[in-house]
Amino acid sequence: MSSRKNLANAIRALAMDAVESAKSGHPGMPMGMADIAEVLWNDFLKHNPANPKWANRDRFVLSNGHGSMLIYALLHLTGYDLPLSELKNFRQLHSKTAGHPEASETPGVETTTGPLGQGLANAVGMALAEKVLAARFNRKGFDIVDHNTFVFLGDGCLMEGISHEVASLAGTLGLGKLVAVWDDNGISIDGEVEGWFTDDTPARFESYGWNVIRGVDGHDPDAISNAIGSALRSATKPTLICAKTVIGFGAPNKQGKESSHGAPLGKDEVAAARAQLGWEHAPFVVPEDIYAEWNARDHGATREAQWNELFAGYKASHAELAAEFERRQNAELPAGFSESVDTWIERLQIEGPAVASRKASQMALDAIGPLLPELIGGSADLAGSNLTIWKGSRNVIGDDASANYIHYGVREFGMSAIANGLALHGGFIPYDATFLVFSDYARNALRMSALIPTRAIHVYTHDSIGLGEDGPTHQPVEHLASLRYIPNNHVWRPCDAVESAVSWKRAIERVNGPSCLVFSRQTLVHQPRDKKQLADIARGGYVLSDPPAAKFDAILVATGSEVEIAMQAMRILADQGIGVRVVSMPCTNVFDTQPLEYREGVLPSWCRRRVAVEAGVTDFWRKYVGLDGDVVGIDTFGASAPADALYQHFGITAEETVERVKALG
Amino acid sequence: MSSRKNLANAIRALAMDAVESAKSGHPGMPMGMADIAEVLWNDFLKHNPANPKWANRDRFVLSNGHGSMLIYALLHLTGYDLPLSELKNFRQLHSKTAGHPEASETPGVETTTGPLGQGLANAVGMALAEKVLAARFNRKGFDIVDHNTFVFLGDGCLMEGISHEVASLAGTLGLGKLVAVWDDNGISIDGEVEGWFTDDTPARFESYGWNVIRGVDGHDPDAISNAIGSALRSATKPTLICAKTVIGFGAPNKQGKESSHGAPLGKDEVAAARAQLGWEHAPFVVPEDIYAEWNARDHGATREAQWNELFAGYKASHAELAAEFERRQNAELPAGFSESVDTWIERLQIEGPAVASRKASQMALDAIGPLLPELIGGSADLAGSNLTIWKGSRNVIGDDASANYIHYGVREFGMSAIANGLALHGGFIPYDATFLVFSDYARNALRMSALIPTRAIHVYTHDSIGLGEDGPTHQPVEHLASLRYIPNNHVWRPCDAVESAVSWKRAIERVNGPSCLVFSRQTLVHQPRDKKQLADIARGGYVLSDPPAAKFDAILVATGSEVEIAMQAMRILADQGIGVRVVSMPCTNVFDTQPLEYREGVLPSWCRRRVAVEAGVTDFWRKYVGLDGDVVGIDTFGASAPADALYQHFGITAEETVERVKALG
Repeated sequence: MSSRKNLANAIRALAMDAVESAKSGHPGMPMGMADIAEVLWNDFLKHNPANPKWANRDRFVLSNGHGSMLIYALLHLTGYDLPLSELKNFRQLHSKTAGHPEASETPGVETTTGPLGQGLANAVGMALAEKVLAARFNRKGFDIVDHNTFVFLGDGCLMEGISHEVASLAGTLGLGKLVAVWDDNGISIDGEVEGWFTDDTPARFESYGWNVIRGVDGHDPDAISNAIGSALRSATKPTLICAKTVIGFGAPNKQGKESSHGAPLGKDEVAAARAQLGWEHAPFVVPEDIYAEWNARDHGATREAQWNELFAGYKASHAELAAEFERRQNAELPAGFSESVDTWIERLQIEGPAVASRKASQMALDAIGPLLPELIGGSADLAGSNLTIWKGSRNVIGDDASANYIHYGVREFGMSAIANGLALHGGFIPYDATFLVFSDYARNALRMSALIPTRAIHVYTHDSIGLGEDGPTHQPVEHLASLRYIPNNHVWRPCDAVESAVSWKRAIERVNGPSCLVFSRQTLVHQPRDKKQLADIARGGYVLSDPPAAKFDAILVATGSEVEIAMQAMRILADQGIGVRVVSMPCTNVFDTQPLEYREGVLPSWCRRRVAVEAGVTDFWRKYVGLDGDVVGIDTFGASAPADALYQHFGITAEETVERVKALG
Repeated sequence: MSSRKNLANAIRALAMDAVESAKSGHPGMPMGMADIAEVLWNDFLKHNPANPKWANRDRFVLSNGHGSMLIYALLHLTGYDLPLSELKNFRQLHSKTAGHPEASETPGVETTTGPLGQGLANAVGMALAEKVLAARFNRKGFDIVDHNTFVFLGDGCLMEGISHEVASLAGTLGLGKLVAVWDDNGISIDGEVEGWFTDDTPARFESYGWNVIRGVDGHDPDAISNAIGSALRSATKPTLICAKTVIGFGAPNKQGKESSHGAPLGKDEVAAARAQLGWEHAPFVVPEDIYAEWNARDHGATREAQWNELFAGYKASHAELAAEFERRQNAELPAGFSESVDTWIERLQIEGPAVASRKASQMALDAIGPLLPELIGGSADLAGSNLTIWKGSRNVIGDDASANYIHYGVREFGMSAIANGLALHGGFIPYDATFLVFSDYARNALRMSALIPTRAIHVYTHDSIGLGEDGPTHQPVEHLASLRYIPNNHVWRPCDAVESAVSWKRAIERVNGPSCLVFSRQTLVHQPRDKKQLADIARGGYVLSDPPAAKFDAILVATGSEVEIAMQAMRILADQGIGVRVVSMPCTNVFDTQPLEYREGVLPSWCRRRVAVEAGVTDFWRKYVGLDGDVVGIDTFGASAPADALYQHFGITAEETVERVKALG
């Protein structure tokens, strides 16, 4: 039987060797947290290396993701599909061992981390998912949803503002199955943190209503074990374990110092560390007995088999629930979902309500929500403005088994990162909401939605100067363009209730990435469409109006509230004998993925007389109108005034559009 | 003598009336905080309504900026240049009374607020500026810098993550002259906050090392006065005054409820409130005796005169310091600054160092820093990577009178909002720094830099996939384009040490807005330039290379590390008989402001065979290459691998550029 130290040293050695081999990386954190990780993974973590997607596994998140070699070592040692060759290829092209852990690249990595603080937020989302899912599905004798969420975090995560947002909310929500371990090593990149980080962190987390376990020796397996055991007994409070560690533990000249944080230790120091740790094996060599003790495949298979048995019993006595659980775990939409929604949208096209698109969004939620119990929503304290509460919304605070709504408070960044965690956990399609301008606050979490990727739906209302009197601090100008540029992000800005409904449907049906649904504060008119036009909304851009015989001299391209401005301009121009095609382009990202033939059909190359109209920065539209076209938009900040006055003031009008088209003649 | 209540009721009435007149706005906060504001402004605040820019005034920040009518009422009542007509025009076009307070619009408004939490951060920056400036300039008997910074904030500010970042840092920095008043009314937009905000806020702030004054009745002038008096005696700790208030105080049916928060009270409720408050005056009517008691012009004039006398004595005994103080207060650069830097840049062009542009940035700091004692820098825990520490950097912790460097910790958003506060205070040119990808975390503070506007310089290193192994979480792709779209923001991405130096100079000389300086991790080659080319860097874009006789068939436009790729492609194409112009475009924002003639000279309309090269999203460049050109770039997330492998993998190479140019032939 190897000593626990030896088991932990296997992590340390692999971390040192991989960083050395890559000539870059972060050895200090894996070496410092190795003992904690060893105890957690060998004694507590419920998982099955052969099936990283087992529904009831414990979730483990490395929020201080730069220490990626810690999780790669753990996954390798416990028997995940991550062979030694991958560790030797650490940080190389096409390897499964990226510089920071990526959920899409590596089996067993629950979420993509690196941008500090967001792993903690994802973990809060996972723990919340577990709690809500348990309330919904567990039945007497059948706790089919019953797992813990563990998260490691460092000083950097704790300094980040998002840690405040999500720790505060986790306390309010009473997420007792969340266990955070703070790697209290007193070191960040700039050196000893006492010069810039003097919080009494335990007191801070107590102020959030957390269970805090102070002063744990992060290199003492018994102390760690006791702390985790105690944490797991905390039923209604999340736990923070404050673990004192030595960064780079084992490297005689660099441990406890910043120099072990983010660079290879160097050949000599690695050799010295091997000697100090008593780990006399060659690089990347782990003795068989150490492998054997780490291997969790048998144990994992047993655990999952036990759960499968439980689930079989559940299935026998609660067939419908079990089927629903499996459907949601598999991220399958209910049978007939698409058809039901299409039928409703067809009716909407006929009824033609003229409403603000934020109201249309609420109507869509009222139509779609009852079909989708996996929908879980919320807003950053703007429920009444974002209109994110629908008839079936039930607050997650309380014991309502159908809970599906989170009052996130004024915490935009935390909200979106929690939404990523809800989506990653499985069983949910999260939507969150704030004003479009405050997508800025959450921006890196949106990027992570796209990168991880998660099916997170971000609802943004008050989408332009059209919000009026709140003024430039609240008026998005550059946001539509900026959000469209995030790779793998879909940004929808519908022009009426029908396009709004389609955008919701597309966002829900999109499995491999997020969607931003951008809605107006002000009322939008309804646009008539034939059957083909209605179907083509889903293609992101389509011809909304053509002159008789489809002979046109110019093309107007518009989105959202500006589509009606384009339609008005088209009518004025028609009276003056200028035939204009109007293209509604609710989602440029989706339009760009259409076959060339379709795109060419909408925006034929021969027509260079093109004007785009959108109440946002104009340069974005050059990709559609080129150097020969023109754009009606706004390239300055807005102003505080009623919406109509602003549209006039900034010249986003049918009259201005007419002039621009004529000037291109 | 009016009662204090009556003085406060003047605020309440003006707030109700203005919101009613505008048919939108937030009456609840001004009515709830009126008593606190009355005591603070009448008994404590050191200011002079006739000179809102008096250097030694107390700073007052309304972080919960939606309650803008509070500050408009205060400014109007105390005698600032904000007549009643402006209050009657609340939230109308061209008024000085925007929906949220805007520093550029209204005399006496210290900063633009509305995006929650940032006002607190600005206030921390102002208090820090006061502390550092005092250490630099005060002399025995001459405390010429000696003022307090007051900030009002609400539950929303406290929920935001940025409140954690900046309160934590304010505690570490010991900003004793910072006094924050928490409007503890228990209400946010979604309703009673207890469902989503259950922090023990006093304990939380104590964990940051703040002086916390609990349980103050926000409607009892004596209690408020005692609390502020006590706060001002706290020498080394910032103070949080926890003031229990009733939102919408005085409105009998809506006070204490969300319904008073963000909408007009309505005619009947306004009438009922007038009755309950005993304020029997017509809308917008304030009795002369109330005006008289509020008027602070005499008192302000006396205060400023006293300070002027002090400063005259200071000038007499410390002439040089006094002149330096005045120069910095007036935001004037040192005499000869421009010439000195130009001389250095000319030498740099001759020496031609091949360094990473982040290193070039540090060289620029070493050259410019000694000339500019007002430069105050910092990094979000990436000093060694961002290379923001220069030879003259001195940590602001400690008593060094030349302190000019802040270890911000891992707090990107707080950092940039604090930088805005430093700039707003006067006497400083702040720069901050992080990796380009984490500009996301700070994004709304960058927007505020541009909107307020402030001369804040944001340094972003590791500017593309060229950072290599850290992988896609750390590799910016969409960021350059997104930052360029923020109105009034200047984004520089220099191609070598010389352009880096020019970008620093331009950022420092730019008074009315921020600059983002974007630098590489990897080494960049030096580009040769003649005198005109050297001068034209400052125009944002210029011809770096033309074929003999300036006859060219195609144009390559590039920035940063891709300029050398374009140069290589140009050479290959020249060998194949294709003449190519290479345009270096370090700052599109500045280039776009050049006269048409200059722009046409660089990018002549006749040449549509244009290819842009930048390791970022391609669509941005359509504004320069149009529909007929092409763009070499990256529209997906990056990957974890050495930089060279990534450039090959993603096809950002000279060879690919050559092919694209030829394909357009």
